[in-house]
Amino acid sequence: MPPSNSVKDYIRTIVDFPHEGILFRDVTTLFADPRGFRMAIDQMLHPYAGTQIDKVVGLEARGFILGGAIAHQLSKGFVPVRKKGKLPAATIAEEYQLEYGSAVVEIHDDALSAGEKVLIVDDLLATGGTAEAGIKLCERLGAQVIGCVFVVDLPDLGGRRRLEAMGIEVHALCEFSGH
Amino acid sequence: MPPSNSVKDYIRTIVDFPHEGILFRDVTTLFADPRGFRMAIDQMLHPYAGTQIDKVVGLEARGFILGGAIAHQLSKGFVPVRKKGKLPAATIAEEYQLEYGSAVVEIHDDALSAGEKVLIVDDLLATGGTAEAGIKLCERLGAQVIGCVFVVDLPDLGGRRRLEAMGIEVHALCEFSGH
Repeated sequence: MPPSNSVKDYIRTIVDFPHEGILFRDVTTLFADPRGFRMAIDQMLHPYAGTQIDKVVGLEARGFILGGAIAHQLSKGFVPVRKKGKLPAATIAEEYQLEYGSAVVEIHDDALSAGEKVLIVDDLLATGGTAEAGIKLCERLGAQVIGCVFVVDLPDLGGRRRLEAMGIEVHALCEFSGH
Repeated sequence: MPPSNSVKDYIRTIVDFPHEGILFRDVTTLFADPRGFRMAIDQMLHPYAGTQIDKVVGLEARGFILGGAIAHQLSKGFVPVRKKGKLPAATIAEEYQLEYGSAVVEIHDDALSAGEKVLIVDDLLATGGTAEAGIKLCERLGAQVIGCVFVVDLPDLGGRRRLEAMGIEVHALCEFSGH
C-alpha cells in the first residue's frame, strides 16, 4: 500500500463478509501498517488533548487492540468489556439487540470506581448497540463516560445519533456511507 | 491495591474459574492499574531493546490488549491471530489440542511478509498450544519469530519447554507454580 496521511486509505473492504450483501470494513490492514496504526491511535486521542481520562475501556475484541495502545499512550489503566462468560470475577451484564437475536456483554463489577472519567474505544460504530451497552455498564458502576471514539463510523446505521441521544460525545476518524 | 514495583502483585487469582479446581490468574487487575499496565508493557519490551522487530502479533483476546500497546510503543504494525471464522479476508489456519478437543486459530495470509521479524505477545503461557499454533502461522508466512513474550508463565504446564524446543526465545514477567 502506498503511504497515505489518511487513515481511511489503510482500511480494506471485504465483500460479502460475514454474510452476503455486507461490505465489511477491515481495519486489520490499518493496524498492520506502522504508519496507519500510529496515525489511528494519535488521531483518536486528538479530541481529548487536555481532557482528564482515568480509565480506557475497550470493547471486545478489536477495541482491545486500540484501547490497549491508547491506555498505554496515556499511562492509564485499561478495562475490558467482554462477551458473556469471559471475565473470571464478579460482573454486571447488559443485553443488546443484534440483527437477529441478542447478545450480552459484561464488565467486572470492581473495574471502575464512582466518578472515574472513562473513554470508550472500539474500531467501528454501526448501530451502536455494543457501545450503548458498554456505556450503560460504565455508568452503572458510577463512572462518567467522557466520550466514545472509533476508527470508522457507518453513519447510515445511526449509531452516532443513538449515542449522542444518551448525551455521549462521539468521535470517529472516518466514515463509510452506502454499505 | 497498594502501589508495587512487581507486576505479579497486581495479578488477581480467581478460584474455580473457568471450572472447579482451576486457579485462574486474572490479569485484568494488572491492566486496570495505570502503574501496573505501564510496568507490564515496559518490562515486556526490555529483553528486545536494540532488537529489530517489524511486526507485533497478538493472540486473541488478551494478547490484543498487550500487543496493541507494544506495537504502538514500538511504532510498528499489529497483526492479530484470531479464533476461526473471525478474520474477514483469506486466512491460513492451525489446529491445536485443548484439554478436551481442539481449537483452530487463523492469520490473514497477507498479514506478514517473508523475512519480517515478529514478536508474539500474549498474557499467559500455560501448555503453549496457542502460542505454538501462532508461531507456526507466522513461520508459514515466511516470517521469523524473534520471540514470544508473556506476562505470566505457568511453568508446571510445560509451555516454555515446548516453545524453546521449537527454537523460540521465551520471556515472561512472572511465574505461578502449583496451580
